[in-house]
Amino acid sequence: KKKRLDNCYRRTIRGTNRARGIGLQLVKELANSSNRPVAAVAIIATARNPAASTALQDLSKTHSDLHIVTLDVSSEQSTSSASEQVQSILGNSGLNCLINNAAIGFSTNISTVTPEAMMTMFQVYTVAPLFVTKAFLPLLQTAAANGMGIHRAAIINMSSVLGSITLNCGDTAKFRSYVYCTSKAALNMLTRCLAADLEPSKILCMSLHPGWVRTDMEGPHADLTVEQSVSGILSVLFGLSEQDNGSLDYHGQKLQW
Amino acid sequence: KKKRLDNCYRRTIRGTNRARGIGLQLVKELANSSNRPVAAVAIIATARNPAASTALQDLSKTHSDLHIVTLDVSSEQSTSSASEQVQSILGNSGLNCLINNAAIGFSTNISTVTPEAMMTMFQVYTVAPLFVTKAFLPLLQTAAANGMGIHRAAIINMSSVLGSITLNCGDTAKFRSYVYCTSKAALNMLTRCLAADLEPSKILCMSLHPGWVRTDMEGPHADLTVEQSVSGILSVLFGLSEQDNGSLDYHGQKLQW
Ligand SMILES: NC(=O)c1ccc[n+]([C@@H]2O[C@H](COP(=O)([O-])OP(=O)(O)OC[C@H]3O[C@@H](n4cnc5c(N)ncnc54)[C@H](OP(=O)(O)O)[C@@H]3O)[C@@H](O)[C@H]2O)c1
Ligand SMILES: NC(=O)c1ccc[n+]([C@@H]2O[C@H](COP(=O)([O-])OP(=O)(O)OC[C@H]3O[C@@H](n4cnc5c(N)ncnc54)[C@H](OP(=O)(O)O)[C@@H]3O)[C@@H](O)[C@H]2O)c1
Repeated sequence: KKKRLDNCYRRTIRGTNRARGIGLQLVKELANSSNRPVAAVAIIATARNPAASTALQDLSKTHSDLHIVTLDVSSEQSTSSASEQVQSILGNSGLNCLINNAAIGFSTNISTVTPEAMMTMFQVYTVAPLFVTKAFLPLLQTAAANGMGIHRAAIINMSSVLGSITLNCGDTAKFRSYVYCTSKAALNMLTRCLAADLEPSKILCMSLHPGWVRTDMEGPHADLTVEQSVSGILSVLFGLSEQDNGSLDYHGQKLQW
Repeated sequence: KKKRLDNCYRRTIRGTNRARGIGLQLVKELANSSNRPVAAVAIIATARNPAASTALQDLSKTHSDLHIVTLDVSSEQSTSSASEQVQSILGNSGLNCLINNAAIGFSTNISTVTPEAMMTMFQVYTVAPLFVTKAFLPLLQTAAANGMGIHRAAIINMSSVLGSITLNCGDTAKFRSYVYCTSKAALNMLTRCLAADLEPSKILCMSLHPGWVRTDMEGPHADLTVEQSVSGILSVLFGLSEQDNGSLDYHGQKLQW
């Protein structure tokens, strides 16, 4: 049992290198969208091994405004080199929106949870979004200062309703994955700290719940297709206003922390 | 600047080995209290280096019901050997109350925060309380099953108002230490997961905010003496009821997550 868990854990950490799920669909929709915000003249898709993703490679052939950059969010070195590449792609226009979305779908209950799994999840879901954000902050600050967009600059942390401490008890608690719930709650606190600290720079920061979506992470029994989830996410992104700063949102509805 | 921060960080992680602050005062008060719950026939004080704590040693000389056990919450090996020692002290009566209190007072803002500091804080403030709890769970289950106490068995996670995501923004946000706030928010989620999972076993779990207290962590300008803080904490502990399960409490008042 322990052995099987370890194997499953290692497979999850290594990933598929395909670049998939909600992130891939977001890139597809943004690339094909005709009504996206004026400022978004370039789309940057990041993946830890873009060469292996035929979906991303195919998309970039037909969309000259789509740029693919290698980024393993768990590596400081990869993060810093990705931010340099993005800087050279965007030049002086800055970055209007950063979406922290990377996921490792690993679930543990009170019996199966290990210290190692807890620490890995905090690294990917909480620490990485902070240091990716810090690496891209100068570019976001440039965009905010330029004031070119319909929206000011924004940081979107892909969170989950399972990170809501209020909702994660009693009847509203669907299931309790110790590693997932704690790291997403910590991510929500990070959102809140950034929202407050970056407000003077006019950079908005929010947590988004994408719904329960049929990706590799959640499997075929989830509620929504990736298309449905992403269309909701984009309508929130396209309509961002100051009221959204420091909030946890699901398709335009505010959720409790 | 970086160098000084590193030194300060290392000193904080190593600690004083004195056993101090709110934890020490809780032990003192409990040892001297005449109105403590009937079931509490033994008090177990844990510290990472009890031999170096004259305060604990002196106290144990005059209180035969006070037992001192070595526990470094960051070490799985130490945690498991501490739970064995406590089992042999308590025999069949079980453990009525576990207080997860260990602290490393390290503060970082958006500029000074490092991945290393984030990971250390998650380890001490979130992961350690979970695995200390898991190690002591059989003893808590015994106490709950015995039904000997005035209260059923309880797990108290020492949290902070700074771990409240709701309060950590706008006017109610006193300061934003990225490492501290995120790890205490994650601890609050842990409280909530445990509260739900252990409810069938009649083990209560709650987060407590001790107030802003004049300990090594917070220095001489904080609001409360340790005596004031601990008297508030004990009156909450002595009055625990099912309504407190899964809550965040400060001296009898519920705080928002
Ligand atoms: N699906 C849901 O129902 C649901 C619900 C609530 C919240 N969410 C959140 O939504 C986000 C996306 O989830 P999803 O369902 O789309 O997950 P997914 O299908 O499992 O895809 C996760 C993606 O993250 C990438 N990734 C993992 N670790 C990475 C790293 N270190 N560096 C760079 N990329 C990395 C993976 O890359 P590889 O392809 O290389 O492995 C993969 O492309 C996550 O934050 C998740 O927690 C999802
Ligand atoms: N003080 C406040 O205003 C305040 C406010 C909100 C919440 N809190 C919370 O209240 C709790 C107690 O804080 P405090 O102010 O009493 O802190 P403190 O005065 O700094 O004392 C912390 C204690 O934790 C021990 N410790 C640290 N790491 C440990 C480890 N790995 N294993 C075992 N023991 C360890 C220390 O041992 P050594 O003596 O060996 O170093 C020390 O005795 C903490 O959880 C803190 O976050 C405090």
